[in-house]
Amino acid sequence: MSEINSLIKGYHAYHTIDYRRDEALLQSLAKKGQSPKAMVISCCDSRVEPSSILGTLPGDLFMVRNVANLVPPCAADDRHHGTSAALEYAITQLHIPHIIIMGHAMCGGIKALVDGILDDSNDSSFIANWIKIAKDAKEEAGCCDKEGEELQRAVEQASILNSLENLMTFPFIQERVADGRVQLHGWYFDFSTGELFSYDKEKGAFINL
Amino acid sequence: MSEINSLIKGYHAYHTIDYRRDEALLQSLAKKGQSPKAMVISCCDSRVEPSSILGTLPGDLFMVRNVANLVPPCAADDRHHGTSAALEYAITQLHIPHIIIMGHAMCGGIKALVDGILDDSNDSSFIANWIKIAKDAKEEAGCCDKEGEELQRAVEQASILNSLENLMTFPFIQERVADGRVQLHGWYFDFSTGELFSYDKEKGAFINL
Amino acid sequence: MSEINSLIKGYHAYHTIDYRRDEALLQSLAKKGQSPKAMVISCCDSRVEPSSILGTLPGDLFMVRNVANLVPPCAADDRHHGTSAALEYAITQLHIPHIIIMGHAMCGGIKALVDGILDDSNDSSFIANWIKIAKDAKEEAGCCDKEGEELQRAVEQASILNSLENLMTFPFIQERVADGRVQLHGWYFDFSTGELFSYDKEKGAFINL
Amino acid sequence: MSEINSLIKGYHAYHTIDYRRDEALLQSLAKKGQSPKAMVISCCDSRVEPSSILGTLPGDLFMVRNVANLVPPCAADDRHHGTSAALEYAITQLHIPHIIIMGHAMCGGIKALVDGILDDSNDSSFIANWIKIAKDAKEEAGCCDKEGEELQRAVEQASILNSLENLMTFPFIQERVADGRVQLHGWYFDFSTGELFSYDKEKGAFINL
Repeated sequence: MSEINSLIKGYHAYHTIDYRRDEALLQSLAKKGQSPKAMVISCCDSRVEPSSILGTLPGDLFMVRNVANLVPPCAADDRHHGTSAALEYAITQLHIPHIIIMGHAMCGGIKALVDGILDDSNDSSFIANWIKIAKDAKEEAGCCDKEGEELQRAVEQASILNSLENLMTFPFIQERVADGRVQLHGWYFDFSTGELFSYDKEKGAFINL
Repeated sequence: MSEINSLIKGYHAYHTIDYRRDEALLQSLAKKGQSPKAMVISCCDSRVEPSSILGTLPGDLFMVRNVANLVPPCAADDRHHGTSAALEYAITQLHIPHIIIMGHAMCGGIKALVDGILDDSNDSSFIANWIKIAKDAKEEAGCCDKEGEELQRAVEQASILNSLENLMTFPFIQERVADGRVQLHGWYFDFSTGELFSYDKEKGAFINL
Repeated sequence: MSEINSLIKGYHAYHTIDYRRDEALLQSLAKKGQSPKAMVISCCDSRVEPSSILGTLPGDLFMVRNVANLVPPCAADDRHHGTSAALEYAITQLHIPHIIIMGHAMCGGIKALVDGILDDSNDSSFIANWIKIAKDAKEEAGCCDKEGEELQRAVEQASILNSLENLMTFPFIQERVADGRVQLHGWYFDFSTGELFSYDKEKGAFINL
Repeated sequence: MSEINSLIKGYHAYHTIDYRRDEALLQSLAKKGQSPKAMVISCCDSRVEPSSILGTLPGDLFMVRNVANLVPPCAADDRHHGTSAALEYAITQLHIPHIIIMGHAMCGGIKALVDGILDDSNDSSFIANWIKIAKDAKEEAGCCDKEGEELQRAVEQASILNSLENLMTFPFIQERVADGRVQLHGWYFDFSTGELFSYDKEKGAFINL
């Protein structure tokens, strides 16, 4: 239980300092409701914390975190689609003007894909069935004899572009991008150097912000 | 673009102060990989940021964020199950010893459920199909003539218990809970007062931490 | 100028994140004026930052920082007495109820005293003339064959008691301590371990808080 | 004792989160000693915390805090001169390359000077004898029919220039400024707006950083 005790200690520390600092803001957000600046789709990875990286306050970011920060293509059936539900809520209910796919270096999910351990088998693996969303990214990125870290990074970045494309398969996003109400962004964070990159469509490359 | 510019300014601020503080830790986490203390399943809500609330550092929390912090029941098919994939990765690959369902007050997803606007219709709504995971919670909590905020809070808390039950439908969780390798926790945060509650099984109630 | 540029970058980071968090509090403090919880007399040492160590917000601490966190005895002449002026302002104008002498480990000023390099000579040295406030502390602490780090720590702590005694030579402090309006505290921080100690009069020792 | 208890709670919060973040840095600073980027002479005012405003880490700033952030002129006698001792220590022992006088808006010490309540009488007042360091600043700034807040601000800024001149009366500073080893800076912070200004010698004015 020592991990849990350390989290409870952490909560008391939060309550003493940071909650005291943010109390007025939080109470105002309780009254008025949230109107976030952006929706961020980020990885579950414990080393990548978008609210820290982007220096935001409570109320700023509507946040999805899933393995490898993936957006599946629109599939309107009666199943439980968590990321798609979050997109629908963010765009049609909260009218958030920006969606940021926030990829990152050394992603365990992408590594599993790159290493090929999930390719064929394992129909019963949730990870395999989830990570295959990025299968095309692997093929595109891996086309050119890259290896090791270079290949991993290329797939991580190609997968961001893949998710940006999948975003456009949702009608409620497509129409708002078309008329300018929503903008899509592909960002890539390297937590080992602190560098943040943004995909530049014209240059076809990720550029240091 | 002013929202995006403010996030980029926020990133530069992070890079100047907080990245500098955490640089050694992040580089060590880049080398050794992550071994988080706990997995947290929290809501997308911009007002609830578990890493702040629990005073954690990079590397501490493996984080899923979806609408209304729900865990669907185990359904082993070939679809893309984001939350289930994250659970599988956290438990079978990272061997994380704790899973915390982190509910919260004034949850928009639960409110949609409580207000009944998603009940029958709307098969094509991702939100409706997602939030119905908590349908049983609504029925249990709503049994006793509660109304308004009281009802909302009761459903929010019943839904946490519902997700804890759903966690136990995953074989890889069930067996580890049985032999003590994994512990499950239901927590509830009220961001308007800063209070954090934990579900106490013996008392059958959420207790202030 | 690179040090200055890094401070200016630091200011912009502060302005982006922390000022935004504290803006309402600061504006309220601008209107109402300050009414601090405590006055702290701390060292100039760059490694000891009381507002961090005590988790305080703007408005909480009225702060003197001088070499070795010393309080000179009351000497009412027409000279410029910075620390005495701060005491008078804190107690007679702001009515602050607590004065904390915040000593610390590895103090360069105390080390100079312990090493004896300032004892006899050097009438023209400001450091020598300042640090000799703690001369008695050195004699008391050094009475018992201590050496090295142990001696240094003993003098650091004896000097805190010496400053507490010097506080009582100020009539405006003495009368308020007598009638309970002001309380005096001797604290000691070891920045290499993060431990904070408080002087316990009954036990005659510094106790871990 | 509730103020003291809140500071002790604040310390425990610091120890849980921030000490943990800075532990490696502090231990390295314990081993190697400090080599600060700059010395800052700032006010005791609880609303102005230079380490926050400049986004610094432990080890960055050697800090003097006295009433109204004043530097007295060099007066080499056998008295206890706290600020002069700190200057001597910073420059001759630690070889710090920058000295920043950090003035601020709504300074209580300067207000006492402006309101004239300290002018003639009160030889026994430590505040009066301390604040008269800035007497010339009052005369220069007040030459031109300014009133109220405008006058107060003018004296606050003139007093910074006065302290910069007084710095040059210390031989160990003068020689190092002459040969470029030390640079002097006059900064002014308005905590009610978050603006930081730097004195620009060529323009003869304080410029927004």
